[in-house]
Amino acid sequence: MPKRENISMSVIRRLPRYYRFLSELAEQETYRISSGELAKRMNLTASQVRQDFNCFGGFGQQGFGYNTVALKNEIEQILGLRSLRSAILIGVGNLGKAVANHIVFEARGFNLVGAFEKSQNLIGKPLKSLLVKDYNGLEAFCSERVIDVAILCIPEKEAETVSAQLYSLGIKCFWNFSHYDISCKYPDAIVENVHMGDSLMTLSYRIFENSEKNKNS
Amino acid sequence: MPKRENISMSVIRRLPRYYRFLSELAEQETYRISSGELAKRMNLTASQVRQDFNCFGGFGQQGFGYNTVALKNEIEQILGLRSLRSAILIGVGNLGKAVANHIVFEARGFNLVGAFEKSQNLIGKPLKSLLVKDYNGLEAFCSERVIDVAILCIPEKEAETVSAQLYSLGIKCFWNFSHYDISCKYPDAIVENVHMGDSLMTLSYRIFENSEKNKNS
Repeated sequence: MPKRENISMSVIRRLPRYYRFLSELAEQETYRISSGELAKRMNLTASQVRQDFNCFGGFGQQGFGYNTVALKNEIEQILGLRSLRSAILIGVGNLGKAVANHIVFEARGFNLVGAFEKSQNLIGKPLKSLLVKDYNGLEAFCSERVIDVAILCIPEKEAETVSAQLYSLGIKCFWNFSHYDISCKYPDAIVENVHMGDSLMTLSYRIFENSEKNKNS
Repeated sequence: MPKRENISMSVIRRLPRYYRFLSELAEQETYRISSGELAKRMNLTASQVRQDFNCFGGFGQQGFGYNTVALKNEIEQILGLRSLRSAILIGVGNLGKAVANHIVFEARGFNLVGAFEKSQNLIGKPLKSLLVKDYNGLEAFCSERVIDVAILCIPEKEAETVSAQLYSLGIKCFWNFSHYDISCKYPDAIVENVHMGDSLMTLSYRIFENSEKNKNS
């Protein structure tokens, strides 16, 4: 079965979870799993799992379940994790530091090749295998190599100017932790937003809903 | 129209975005907006916006658009942001510090009342208006007050033991930054996961897809 066109973002957003989960199974030397078992462990239905995989051509053999290693490799390929893209970090405050230290970039399809900061007291400090560079050197840095992605760990009020500069330097992919809406100004940019505050509000909703339900029952 | 039962998580996850966006409009003194305009600015369709709001009883008046302040207040109420729940932070490394400093808890329905850490060199240090406490004092701390939520900024390998201890202390709501799957062991817990790595893999997929498309066109 060929891969479908226009796969929905909700299917795509489940792929990293499948990938993480299958990587764990492979590490635990579990080499075969049924769609039912996979679904159960991931809080999905078996039909959902089969539908998701059918979007990419289907990976299972009826009655035999999935080969975890083969499936992990397929998803790795689909996610584009095999070729590393170069990324730079803009903003090395607590959030930037956390992102740089917390994320294993190479396992997620990226190479962190530079980190830039405006604060003089952070410039020159080590960050992983890098030294934090002066933001003023950004243009020169980018003119010497191809940068695929910028990671924005800066306040919303700086994000408009910074994203404009990055865009003019040819960077059109953003991993955006600021609250500034880059897509609005640059519809052709590929932007993945991380809005931690939205996640916290969703938690608030779920706790509130649950307490209301308990009140009424 | 009354609120519907079983509203899908994808609708719920859009509410914080509506809320942020309406808050901005209200700040900019824009007091009325059509579903079409709201949709356009949020990269949704007008019908999607109307459907979303209909899940909660609908807020607009046909032909008049939405009153931004009233709508913001409605969504604030739905998200449960008006009553602050108490939260504790477990793990004050870079990630914990970033979360504590980056998030305006009070605006998201929570009060951060304690921060706990195992590393001796972090204990006693200031974090926002708090002093980081010794993780060993967690039980005593929780026995003296009601804690609604634990924020886990700890490595996956510690998360199993820590979540078990928190659960036994009566904490059943988690904002989870670790990769450990809490829901799997405690199906009655309310867990909101922040998987930054998944977001990065989604970005990888989108960049890869885009480059494949450009190759073929």
